[in-house]
Amino acid sequence: MDTAADTTAMRRAIALAARGLGSTSPNPVVGCVILDAEGQPAGEGFHQRAGGPHAEIHALREAGEKARGGTAYVTLEPCNHTGRTGPCAQALIEAGVSRVVYAVADPNAQATGGADTLRAAGVTVEQGLLGGLAEAGNTAWLTSVRLGRPYVLWKYAATLDGRIAAADATSRWITSAESRADVHRLRAEADAVVVGSGTARTDDPQLGVRGIEGAVQPLRVVVDTDATAVRPGARVLDTTAPTLIAVADDADTGRLPEGTVLRLPRAATGRGLDIPALLAALHERGVRSVLLEGGPTLAGAFVAAGTVDKVVGYLAPVLLGAGPAALADAGISTIAQALRLDVTETVRIGPDLRITAVPGPDRKGN
Amino acid sequence: MDTAADTTAMRRAIALAARGLGSTSPNPVVGCVILDAEGQPAGEGFHQRAGGPHAEIHALREAGEKARGGTAYVTLEPCNHTGRTGPCAQALIEAGVSRVVYAVADPNAQATGGADTLRAAGVTVEQGLLGGLAEAGNTAWLTSVRLGRPYVLWKYAATLDGRIAAADATSRWITSAESRADVHRLRAEADAVVVGSGTARTDDPQLGVRGIEGAVQPLRVVVDTDATAVRPGARVLDTTAPTLIAVADDADTGRLPEGTVLRLPRAATGRGLDIPALLAALHERGVRSVLLEGGPTLAGAFVAAGTVDKVVGYLAPVLLGAGPAALADAGISTIAQALRLDVTETVRIGPDLRITAVPGPDRKGN
Repeated sequence: MDTAADTTAMRRAIALAARGLGSTSPNPVVGCVILDAEGQPAGEGFHQRAGGPHAEIHALREAGEKARGGTAYVTLEPCNHTGRTGPCAQALIEAGVSRVVYAVADPNAQATGGADTLRAAGVTVEQGLLGGLAEAGNTAWLTSVRLGRPYVLWKYAATLDGRIAAADATSRWITSAESRADVHRLRAEADAVVVGSGTARTDDPQLGVRGIEGAVQPLRVVVDTDATAVRPGARVLDTTAPTLIAVADDADTGRLPEGTVLRLPRAATGRGLDIPALLAALHERGVRSVLLEGGPTLAGAFVAAGTVDKVVGYLAPVLLGAGPAALADAGISTIAQALRLDVTETVRIGPDLRITAVPGPDRKGN
Repeated sequence: MDTAADTTAMRRAIALAARGLGSTSPNPVVGCVILDAEGQPAGEGFHQRAGGPHAEIHALREAGEKARGGTAYVTLEPCNHTGRTGPCAQALIEAGVSRVVYAVADPNAQATGGADTLRAAGVTVEQGLLGGLAEAGNTAWLTSVRLGRPYVLWKYAATLDGRIAAADATSRWITSAESRADVHRLRAEADAVVVGSGTARTDDPQLGVRGIEGAVQPLRVVVDTDATAVRPGARVLDTTAPTLIAVADDADTGRLPEGTVLRLPRAATGRGLDIPALLAALHERGVRSVLLEGGPTLAGAFVAAGTVDKVVGYLAPVLLGAGPAALADAGISTIAQALRLDVTETVRIGPDLRITAVPGPDRKGN
């Protein structure tokens, strides 16, 4: 049976794990807390970056001899394989930990089996404590394992009447400084930020993370099918972070810097690129979570492909009555085909509202 | 100094007043609580309908002799004039009430002076207790007195991407049964429900209040400039409630029932009718609050005229990517002209979100 101390320790481990969001891919975020044999805090840690030590190793180092006879709380099943680092199950056994409590089983075939190894060595193993909470903290990675493509969060900022700009295309600023700062947090937690050619052409965005200390800059991706939107000197080509310009197989990319071009097939129907192919290419590069920042046409293509896993809308209490809508051309022509979501959170961000929603169980395209 | 008992009594009076919403126009909603000389509840009441007794009279009747030496709590300054009923200030004096506490001064020149009359008769008079709360409860009426036109609440129901229907015009149902029930509450609280010709043509709405016991049916108003949308047999012409079809001076209204036609000048610019003239005609008929239910073109005309006092949006967690937007043609072409609002409330209504907002201090058109 789990005690209050168990729950407190796991909750702390989940909070620690979240600190790794945006910097561990292709690995999951993981947190670990070790209590000594008397139940006192002995060590803690989280997985900080791929190639670096796993959470358990950080926590064991801090705990030292105090780990002997103690309990380790881990948000994900300890790994059993030797990758760039040694297997954590073995490290926990060698440190003399007598009990391991983990929240979520490792779905990754390569890493699974840690629990069995621990049990075989006589360690008491329990699974599932705060499993829902730990899963939520690792949604992006778990989804990417399940679907074999990056998790996609579509973010938009619109007026109450759903406009992302006025009739003359002006849009600075619809949402508040607070909302814009919040978007930088989303960028910091993502492995890649993706925009379309319309956004690149209209806004010349830089797409980097600003104002968040220690943030790992995401890969910047512009879907520029015909290679006409990103021009030499575009801000997205600065040195802040790597950049990929996704273009059609047959596009003329003479003006684009070497090493930035990602050639992909065109969409079988409609304009633009094949979205599953784009996501597969990003997945292959280690991208496990994508922040899709628009514009409406690209977002529509993602919705049509059934590849939006979460929607975060910043709604400004503003009315325009004209101007482009947040979402276009999603292949939905009648109400029965609508993509229905469940609202999971609404929060005031300065004067704005942030609405978070996820596709319902009968999501389109899955 | 106000005691906790004073606050409790006034809070109760404000709650009583709200019961009259939708049935007192052209009068305000008013609630009254009387405590006896020992501070015990003696009587209470609210203004139920124009022509009927004022709140104070209901409460005095219930209190009887117990009112002598007691305190009356009233949400609005007791009236001083003899209209369809006698002056309340005089009734309070005659009942022997020794103290009157009221929340909001009467801005109506015709009725004002009640406080002076009470003081002249030796009654202790205090003003302002829970004034903000009482004002909020009477916003529609107070706004109509201040602006000389009905208070306008614009209600819309849309998807997260701001659509009120799919590309093929289907819209049943974007929002949930809970949201639709909530709209009937808004109708019940309004003196008139107004829609445009597009809505009349597409939805053939009945516009009555359903599912709310004792609700007074609002006046139903269709803005049908050219008298082409409302056809014989339209549901809005049933016997549920009175109906007005607002048409242009020069419209051919041969097909419309006698007594339903309201002739108004066309808008000086753009299509449709002159909105201030429409509101003036409704005000003249005793309408103090209007629920504007759309569609987008009419809502745009109201926004352009600066005559939207409150916005209530029901947002369904649905994405469409195509279809008409909630608001059209508001005369706003660039972001600097946007109508900026303040969000005053967000509530979950079933699976939907209800967002309430009011124009900011620098509202357009005022």
